[in-house]
Amino acid sequence: MVLPIDLLEVSKNREISLLLKDGRVLKGKLIGHDQYMNLVLDDAREEKEGEERRLGKIVLRGSNVVSIALI
Amino acid sequence: MVLPIDLLEVSKNREISLLLKDGRVLKGKLIGHDQYMNLVLDDAREEKEGEERRLGKIVLRGSNVVSIALI
Amino acid sequence: MVLPIDLLEVSKNREISLLLKDGRVLKGKLIGHDQYMNLVLDDAREEKEGEERRLGKIVLRGSNVVSIALI
Amino acid sequence: MVLPIDLLEVSKNREISLLLKDGRVLKGKLIGHDQYMNLVLDDAREEKEGEERRLGKIVLRGSNVVSIALI
Amino acid sequence: MVLPIDLLEVSKNREISLLLKDGRVLKGKLIGHDQYMNLVLDDAREEKEGEERRLGKIVLRGSNVVSIALI
Amino acid sequence: MVLPIDLLEVSKNREISLLLKDGRVLKGKLIGHDQYMNLVLDDAREEKEGEERRLGKIVLRGSNVVSIALI
Amino acid sequence: MVLPIDLLEVSKNREISLLLKDGRVLKGKLIGHDQYMNLVLDDAREEKEGEERRLGKIVLRGSNVVSIALI
Repeated sequence: MVLPIDLLEVSKNREISLLLKDGRVLKGKLIGHDQYMNLVLDDAREEKEGEERRLGKIVLRGSNVVSIALI
Repeated sequence: MVLPIDLLEVSKNREISLLLKDGRVLKGKLIGHDQYMNLVLDDAREEKEGEERRLGKIVLRGSNVVSIALI
Repeated sequence: MVLPIDLLEVSKNREISLLLKDGRVLKGKLIGHDQYMNLVLDDAREEKEGEERRLGKIVLRGSNVVSIALI
Repeated sequence: MVLPIDLLEVSKNREISLLLKDGRVLKGKLIGHDQYMNLVLDDAREEKEGEERRLGKIVLRGSNVVSIALI
Repeated sequence: MVLPIDLLEVSKNREISLLLKDGRVLKGKLIGHDQYMNLVLDDAREEKEGEERRLGKIVLRGSNVVSIALI
Repeated sequence: MVLPIDLLEVSKNREISLLLKDGRVLKGKLIGHDQYMNLVLDDAREEKEGEERRLGKIVLRGSNVVSIALI
Repeated sequence: MVLPIDLLEVSKNREISLLLKDGRVLKGKLIGHDQYMNLVLDDAREEKEGEERRLGKIVLRGSNVVSIALI
């Protein structure tokens, strides 16, 4: 049994890929989270139409996240 | 009487199919969940237009889930 | 006076018809629920354009349900 | 001063008309409710384009209700 | 300092105009409310394209209300 | 460090400009608020296409507010 | 491990860039926040189609925020 929050815990400092509710896909290194699944990404990038936009260090509100994949 | 959370409990390590609010359909092995119906899938795949995209291990926020079916 | 949750209670093992927020209509045997109106259906079917798609045993998140009718 | 929940209380066994968030209009006899404004209607009917579809006894989730009118 | 709920309190038995999330505009006499801003209107009317539809006594769920104006 | 609620506190009796979720822009004198950011505006006006519609004294539900600017 | 709220804490008096749910992008100096991620920005600007609209000091409701980036 793997609690969702535990998977985030063991994913720290690993690259993840996020799907947001608005359809955007973000990638970055997971460096923090809280119990609401708010996330902190380092070296975040948004990929859109083959291009990559660099966002740096960001906070993401968990309520906008659909899924979190380990890369 | 089957509590929804109990059905998730007995579905562990079984293949499930998820319908998300945005219409996406995901399949994978259920390896974890919490009381908010946040889910952890292993070997997750998204099926779209006959093709299958492999997502690996993912966390899904329960608030985006419409229904969970045992395959 | 009939509490909504009580009507679910007495509907156990009966066929129900669900309208979901996304407009889908599901039918099936109600075999469980919780206080959030998350539901467990057995032998669930989705009817769309005269065709019936069989979904088997499913968990439905209450937040996506508009109405529950006894058949 | 009339508390909203009190108006529901005194409307029991009376015909009401409901406007839902998705624009549907339902009518029926109010036979139950809870503190979340989840409702139980008996002999529920949906009126659409001059036609009436009979739904029987239904549970309605309060979160989908916009307004409740006494007929 | 005027608490929003206090303004409702002093508006009792006065005509108000409501803007709902779906864009509808309702008018009526405010005869009740609760702490969630659920409202009870008497002699409620909806104005649409210059015409007035009479709704009688209604309960409005606060979650659908955008703004409440004293007339 | 300025708590959001503190900025509302010191903005009392000052003109503010509100952006609502539905895109509307309202202006008016802030005369009250509560901990949910429900607001009371006096002499509220909506500006649309260069015209100004006067709304008088209104209560605004905080859940519809995107941002609050001091003018 | 970086808690999302801690990143906000250390970002005080720094320039941030916000993506809102409605797609708007705001920039400004973060001068305050609360536990709901409601934010206070000073010297806020909205960038749209290459132009910059100055908004001054604003309160932003956290529920409308998708992501917060340090610039």
